[in-house]
Amino acid sequence: MTRVDLNCDMGESYGAFTIGNDAAVFPFITSANIACGFHGGDPGVMRRTVLAAVQYGVAIGAHPGLPDLIGFGRREMAVTAQDVYDMVVYQVGALRAVATAASTQLRHVKPHGALYNMAAAQPVLATAIAHAIRDTDPALRLVGRAGSALIAAGRAASLITASEVFADRHYQADGALVSRSLDNAVIASVDEAVQRAIEMVRHHRVTAIDGTTIAIQADTLCVHGDAPHAPALVRELRSALASAGVDVRPLDADTAA
Amino acid sequence: MTRVDLNCDMGESYGAFTIGNDAAVFPFITSANIACGFHGGDPGVMRRTVLAAVQYGVAIGAHPGLPDLIGFGRREMAVTAQDVYDMVVYQVGALRAVATAASTQLRHVKPHGALYNMAAAQPVLATAIAHAIRDTDPALRLVGRAGSALIAAGRAASLITASEVFADRHYQADGALVSRSLDNAVIASVDEAVQRAIEMVRHHRVTAIDGTTIAIQADTLCVHGDAPHAPALVRELRSALASAGVDVRPLDADTAA
Amino acid sequence: MTRVDLNCDMGESYGAFTIGNDAAVFPFITSANIACGFHGGDPGVMRRTVLAAVQYGVAIGAHPGLPDLIGFGRREMAVTAQDVYDMVVYQVGALRAVATAASTQLRHVKPHGALYNMAAAQPVLATAIAHAIRDTDPALRLVGRAGSALIAAGRAASLITASEVFADRHYQADGALVSRSLDNAVIASVDEAVQRAIEMVRHHRVTAIDGTTIAIQADTLCVHGDAPHAPALVRELRSALASAGVDVRPLDADTAA
Amino acid sequence: MTRVDLNCDMGESYGAFTIGNDAAVFPFITSANIACGFHGGDPGVMRRTVLAAVQYGVAIGAHPGLPDLIGFGRREMAVTAQDVYDMVVYQVGALRAVATAASTQLRHVKPHGALYNMAAAQPVLATAIAHAIRDTDPALRLVGRAGSALIAAGRAASLITASEVFADRHYQADGALVSRSLDNAVIASVDEAVQRAIEMVRHHRVTAIDGTTIAIQADTLCVHGDAPHAPALVRELRSALASAGVDVRPLDADTAA
Repeated sequence: MTRVDLNCDMGESYGAFTIGNDAAVFPFITSANIACGFHGGDPGVMRRTVLAAVQYGVAIGAHPGLPDLIGFGRREMAVTAQDVYDMVVYQVGALRAVATAASTQLRHVKPHGALYNMAAAQPVLATAIAHAIRDTDPALRLVGRAGSALIAAGRAASLITASEVFADRHYQADGALVSRSLDNAVIASVDEAVQRAIEMVRHHRVTAIDGTTIAIQADTLCVHGDAPHAPALVRELRSALASAGVDVRPLDADTAA
Repeated sequence: MTRVDLNCDMGESYGAFTIGNDAAVFPFITSANIACGFHGGDPGVMRRTVLAAVQYGVAIGAHPGLPDLIGFGRREMAVTAQDVYDMVVYQVGALRAVATAASTQLRHVKPHGALYNMAAAQPVLATAIAHAIRDTDPALRLVGRAGSALIAAGRAASLITASEVFADRHYQADGALVSRSLDNAVIASVDEAVQRAIEMVRHHRVTAIDGTTIAIQADTLCVHGDAPHAPALVRELRSALASAGVDVRPLDADTAA
Repeated sequence: MTRVDLNCDMGESYGAFTIGNDAAVFPFITSANIACGFHGGDPGVMRRTVLAAVQYGVAIGAHPGLPDLIGFGRREMAVTAQDVYDMVVYQVGALRAVATAASTQLRHVKPHGALYNMAAAQPVLATAIAHAIRDTDPALRLVGRAGSALIAAGRAASLITASEVFADRHYQADGALVSRSLDNAVIASVDEAVQRAIEMVRHHRVTAIDGTTIAIQADTLCVHGDAPHAPALVRELRSALASAGVDVRPLDADTAA
Repeated sequence: MTRVDLNCDMGESYGAFTIGNDAAVFPFITSANIACGFHGGDPGVMRRTVLAAVQYGVAIGAHPGLPDLIGFGRREMAVTAQDVYDMVVYQVGALRAVATAASTQLRHVKPHGALYNMAAAQPVLATAIAHAIRDTDPALRLVGRAGSALIAAGRAASLITASEVFADRHYQADGALVSRSLDNAVIASVDEAVQRAIEMVRHHRVTAIDGTTIAIQADTLCVHGDAPHAPALVRELRSALASAGVDVRPLDADTAA
C-alpha cells in the first residue's frame, strides 16, 4: 500500500513570543520537526512541544537552524562546514535529551530554513550535516528535499534518508523549488496542492513550472505551520490522502516500538 | 588510599572571545566542567574542549549555566524550577551529543555560577537540577558544594553525588562559602590553599572563618581557571597532594571503562 | 480641565515572532512605550512601531528592559546600578536614533517588566535609571509607578516625572500593586477597571484591596497590550474618560511642537 | 602638511569575555571604532571604552556589525538593505547616547567585519549604511575602504567620507584587499607595513600584489587591535609617520571643538 509521512515545523515559539499554530496542526500530522533553540524554540517550548507530540502520537524530529533569532534562521550565513557540523550536533543533542527526559525518542532530523536550502545545494555543508547526525545517533533519519545534495550526503554517510516534497510549492524542471522571491512560487489553492501531493505520492511525479513532468520521490510531505492556510491545508491533505488510499503514517512506523 | 578529584571550569570561551587559560590547566586536572552555550562555550568551543579533555585523559562534565552571556551566568535570575529543569536538560543534552560525536562520554554535571549558588541554597531549584539529570542520564554524577541543598537533592533523586570543596575560599561556620563581596573571601596564598586542601581531603575538616573547625566531605577540589593564580595553584595542588599520598584521580575512575 | 495620558507597551515583537496587538490598540492610546531590543523589539520592529506612532499621533517613549529575551524581561536579575545605568543609556539611545531617523522624537522613558518593578522598590536602581535618562537627554519624561522610588529618583534628578496608575490592577494599602502571583491581582471586569480609572484620574484616589481609600496621582494610565482584553479595555477607557469630561492627551501635549 | 588619522577597532570585549588589547593601543591611535553590542561590546564595555578614548584624546566612532556574536560579525549574512539600515541606526544611536552620557560625542562611523566588506562591494548595502548615518546624524563621517562602494555611497548621500587604507594588507590591482583566505593577504613585517603606510599617506599610491602601482587615497590608517603584532605595529607607525613629517591627528581635528 502506498504510504507517506506528513510533517510540519513545530515548536518555533520562543519565551513569550509565539509563532505558528501548533495546536491546530498537531491532530493531522505524523511527524513534527521541533526547533532546537537557535532560530526558535527555547528549552521550555521544546519540552512542551515534545509532550504534545507524544500525546498526538506524532514522531519527533530535530529541526536545527542557523544561530539567527532575529532572522528566524532564514538568512543564509557564511558558515563553514565545521560550524554546521558543530551546530547540528549541539541542537540535535539538546532536543534528544528533551525527548529522553520525556520518556520518548527522536526519529529524524530536518535542517531548518536557510540551513535546509544551503544543504540542498552545497555538498560540503550537506556532508557536515550528515556526519553530525551519524556521529550523534546513526539511527536518526535525515529528511531533505527530494533529489537534493542533502539526500545524497545522507546516503553516502549510510543514514536512512527521507525525501521531502512540498504540496504547495512549484518546482523547477531540475527538481529545485521555485524561489519564494518569484511570484509563482507558492500554490495558494488548497485543492490544487492536494492534487499535486497525491500525484507525487502515488505516481512519483510532479508537473514542473515549465510544464514538463519530472520524477520525484515523496517519502514525506511538508506543511508549513506558519502559513495562513496551513491548518486548512493539512486537514485537507490528510483527508484527501486517506480517500485516495494512501496510508499516512510516520516514517519509521514499521520499525518503531 | 585517600583520593580526590581535581576539577576546573573549562571551555568558557565564546567564538572569538577568550576566557580562562585551559591549555595551562588541562595537564593538572582530572575533571573538566565544560560550558554548554548559555553563559559561555559555543558549539565549536565545546567540541575542541571535549577533544582536549580526551587527549589529557580528563573526565568530562557538563557545566550548565543561566542564559546570561553578558553576565557570564554570575547574576542570579528569578527563574522557576521548571525553567531550571528545562535549561539543564537542554545544556546537558547538547554537551552529551558533543561527547558522543567525539567518541567519549559525559561523567558528571556541575551547575555554573549563580545557578550553582542558587542550587546550594534553594532546595526547589536543587531538586529541579537533580531531576533534570536523572531524567536525562541517571548515571551522571552530580557535583555540588559539600553540605549544600544540591547534594541533598541529588541523593534524594538517587544520583551519585560528589561533594566539592574550594581550596582557595574561606568557609563560614555553617559550611557556606564566605561571599566574594567580602574582603576575606579568597585565600590568595597558594601555600595556604594547598594546606587547606590537604586538610580537607585527608582529614575531612576545615577551619572556618570564625576559627572553629568544621567537618567537610571532599570528593572533588575546585580550581577556578579564570583566577590569575589558577595555573600555579592547580600545579601546586596536584604536586602537593601526590606528596601527601593522596591519589588524584577522576570521580568514577573505578567504574569507568 | 482634568487630563490624563493613556499609555501601552508597544513594539514588543521580535523578528518573525509576534506579541501583542499593536494595530488594535494604537488608535486609542496617546503614548507608546516602545521596546528597545533587550526583552523584545528588534531594530526593524522599532522602526515600524515608531512610524505607526507618528501616523496615529501617539507620543513615543523608550521601554528599556533587562537583557532576557527568553524571559521577556520579566524575571528579576541581580544587576548592579552600573549595569542598569548602562543598559538604559544604550536602549534609550538606540530608540532615540530610530525616532530621529523617522523625523520624530522621544518624549518619555518607562522601564519594562522586572526592571520597572525593581526600580519601584530599590532606590539605588531607580537612581541609576534617572541618571541614565538625565545624562542622555534631560528633556525626557520618566514614567514610573505612582508613589514609587522611581518617581522619587526622577524628581531628585530634576527630571519631569509622570506617575502611572493601572486601571485593571488591585493596589495594596501602601500603594504597591498586588502581586500577579495572587488571585486577586487583576481586575477582569472592563467596567470596574474603567470606573477605577476615572476615580483615580478625577479624584486622585483609589480603593485598596483592604478596603481603605488611598491617595494616588494619575498622570498616565497603563493598558497592557498583551492582555486578552487589552483592545476592549483601551477602547472603553478612551470613550468613558471622554464621557466623564477627562481630556485624554499625551503627557507633554502643552509643550510639544 | 601631510596628515593622516590612525584608527583601530576598540571595545570589542563582551561581559567577562575579553578580546583585543585596548590598553596597549590607545596611546598611539587618534580614532577608535567602538563596537556597539552586535558583534561585541556590551553597554558597560562601550562606556568604559568611550571614557578611555576621552582620556587619551582619541576621536570616537561607532563600529556597527552584523548580529552574530558567535561569529564576531565576520560571517556574511543575507541581510536586506532595510535590515542594514535598521541595524546601523540602532547601533549608532546606542553608542551616540553612551558618548552623550560621557559628555563627549561621536565623530565617525565605520562598519565592522563582514558588514564592512559587504558594503565595500554591494552598492545597495552601502547606500543603506550611508542613509542610516545621514538620517541619524549627518555630521558623522563615514569611514570605508578607499575606492569602495561605501565611499561612493557616502558621497552620494552628502556625508563627509574618510578613505581607509591598511598598512599590513596586500591590495589587488583593482584596489580591493587580497582575501584573508589567501596566503599572501597579510604583511607580517612591521617595517614593510610602515613603509607602505608612508607611501600611501605621502604619495597616494601603493604597490599591488601583481607589482603594479595603484593610486589610493589615505585619510585614515587602520590597525587591527586583535592581531598579535598590533601594539608593536601601531607604535612603529605612529613614530615612523612623525619622523616622515606626517601629522597624525583625528579626521576632524580642524573642525572639532
